[in-house]
Amino acid sequence: MPTNRRITTRFLSAERLAAMVGEKGLAPCLAGLAGYIDEDFRRWNVFAKTARVANHSRDGVIELMPISDGELYAFKYVNGHPKNFRFGLSTVMAFGVLADVATGIPTLVSELTLTTALRTAAMSAVAARALARPGSRRMAVIGNGAQSEFQALAFHHLLGIKEFHLYDSDSAATEKLLGNLDKLGLRGKRFASTKEAVKGVDIVTTVTADKTNATILTPEMIEPGMHINGVGGDCPGKTELHAEVLRMSRVFVEYEPQTRIEGDIQQMPADFAVTELWQVLTGQALGRCDPGDVTVFDSVGFALEDYSALRYMRDLARELGVEDAISLIPELPDPKNLFGFIPGFEACLPAPAEKAVAAWPGAAANQAVPGLAHAA
Amino acid sequence: MPTNRRITTRFLSAERLAAMVGEKGLAPCLAGLAGYIDEDFRRWNVFAKTARVANHSRDGVIELMPISDGELYAFKYVNGHPKNFRFGLSTVMAFGVLADVATGIPTLVSELTLTTALRTAAMSAVAARALARPGSRRMAVIGNGAQSEFQALAFHHLLGIKEFHLYDSDSAATEKLLGNLDKLGLRGKRFASTKEAVKGVDIVTTVTADKTNATILTPEMIEPGMHINGVGGDCPGKTELHAEVLRMSRVFVEYEPQTRIEGDIQQMPADFAVTELWQVLTGQALGRCDPGDVTVFDSVGFALEDYSALRYMRDLARELGVEDAISLIPELPDPKNLFGFIPGFEACLPAPAEKAVAAWPGAAANQAVPGLAHAA
Repeated sequence: MPTNRRITTRFLSAERLAAMVGEKGLAPCLAGLAGYIDEDFRRWNVFAKTARVANHSRDGVIELMPISDGELYAFKYVNGHPKNFRFGLSTVMAFGVLADVATGIPTLVSELTLTTALRTAAMSAVAARALARPGSRRMAVIGNGAQSEFQALAFHHLLGIKEFHLYDSDSAATEKLLGNLDKLGLRGKRFASTKEAVKGVDIVTTVTADKTNATILTPEMIEPGMHINGVGGDCPGKTELHAEVLRMSRVFVEYEPQTRIEGDIQQMPADFAVTELWQVLTGQALGRCDPGDVTVFDSVGFALEDYSALRYMRDLARELGVEDAISLIPELPDPKNLFGFIPGFEACLPAPAEKAVAAWPGAAANQAVPGLAHAA
Repeated sequence: MPTNRRITTRFLSAERLAAMVGEKGLAPCLAGLAGYIDEDFRRWNVFAKTARVANHSRDGVIELMPISDGELYAFKYVNGHPKNFRFGLSTVMAFGVLADVATGIPTLVSELTLTTALRTAAMSAVAARALARPGSRRMAVIGNGAQSEFQALAFHHLLGIKEFHLYDSDSAATEKLLGNLDKLGLRGKRFASTKEAVKGVDIVTTVTADKTNATILTPEMIEPGMHINGVGGDCPGKTELHAEVLRMSRVFVEYEPQTRIEGDIQQMPADFAVTELWQVLTGQALGRCDPGDVTVFDSVGFALEDYSALRYMRDLARELGVEDAISLIPELPDPKNLFGFIPGFEACLPAPAEKAVAAWPGAAANQAVPGLAHAA
């Protein structure tokens, strides 16, 4: 009979994943994630893409985001609960799964709260590498919450940004970000308003938290050649850019059908022109045409980025020798005898000879079973 | 500041869940599951129901099945890979998650391979209690694979079935089932064909595995008053009942939009009359009208049953004092400082006074913070 395939579901807890990132180093992790995202975006057309499946409730949303390339299947569970801070909880919490498309075995369960922050920053950097002016040195970070350190780090390590102009309506958030940047050896400077913070920078990252149709960036703040990395406008009813800012820019998105609903372009007519980023990465569409162009990456977060991130974390775990696993799927000596898995009923398992027959339908008990001699 | 809410994600591994079932006992588990399913079906209209999200590939399908009642959110991951037996793997493997709708916290991750077998049998028994003739004593079980013991047990304990007539085209499967029934003290009898097995029984359970449009039951086998528990015809291209058997019967389903695609009624015209079971359970529709009626429960498995099963297993774990947990979501002293969760950056956490301010936007550092004195 065929040797039963082992079922292993690797598990990366929140603490384990944080430790892996600490061990590997933040810069290599962000670079690795950017590489995986870039590679997967270039394979755009092989993926079966689905709009996320959302369950809306009074206080928030719970979403499932599945995607597959025919070999690996991935999905992310993620919530969005703006009032969670009242309980000392994160607004966004997430975990995800990788599965083997050929057999359906879930091969990895991983935390994705920290990972989402890392992959979002890596995604922003991949887009900015393709869209921002070469030689960009200064970036404004508007919104200094949980995602802001990751954005700063990714842009420092992957684009060479040297100076960060910070603003948040909550000064304690800016204080926290300044402290973290300082520890990282990065230069952050606090400003009294968005307008002052964005003056003279090459890139503006907006990553604010309020679930409202805000106008964090207005037309008079925009300078020729700026790249706008719009991260916070990412669900229906939550935008950051004035419509006129979008109109004066060339706008790039991850997956157009999703961004039309969730991105800053939700406020624009359905025929407002946008370009999917994968087309720029593969050379099928132009990014920045002129140093004076204003470019916008209207980022909302797409399932493919989580697929890339899960793939990266799986490989990083291998590299670091992490072997944590959970027993999510029963390993059965005979898959037809699930019942025998309940303690007290093991004795009902058929004898080895019968098992062999059961695994080879049509073979009688007294016939030779092909491959049996090779089985362990 | 408010005390941070603890984040606990309970975990029920395949072995743990099997041990719980062994400890509680199979009959009480099936009765408990049937009770939870019955209760939740009576609350039918409070649930936000979604068709399952399927990813089809050459060898199988991977599905996500979400559902929510506005307080609890549940989803199941389940595959269906008919060729898996070649690798010694189960055709169907599953796990699931319960989450708190108010905050998005995933509160339970559980195996659902064994649990699905239990809940499917409990669901069948709930339907048969409502549809089969009172005093039913004999049941044919056509298809003696992984699900068959659970069906026999549920019908014995919940409906008082005393005698099981068995048939499977693979005699080794019948051998295994006979052995397991014997150990359980149940009377099983092997027959040489479906036709002989169903002769004179009150209930026929069809639970065959072949992914094909089969006609396991044909009209001449059907006797007046029979209840047909059709379990195996559960996905596009997989049916068990001859169309004429459906035409001569009153047909009941879980969730009509899904069963039209996946159930035995996929072969019938769109206007073929069916009744959703919840309507019978709540008294809004009639089940069996006459002792001579032939009733069919065209079961495909619906997300609500997994919701009920996850809820039952969560409560059973509590009852048995099982406290296994996994750390899927990071617990952060300050949710705005996700970055500080990475080892080596803890020092960037704001001091307690600053944290309090960060958690109460608008409060200045030198103001008294309501509730701060009560915080640990």
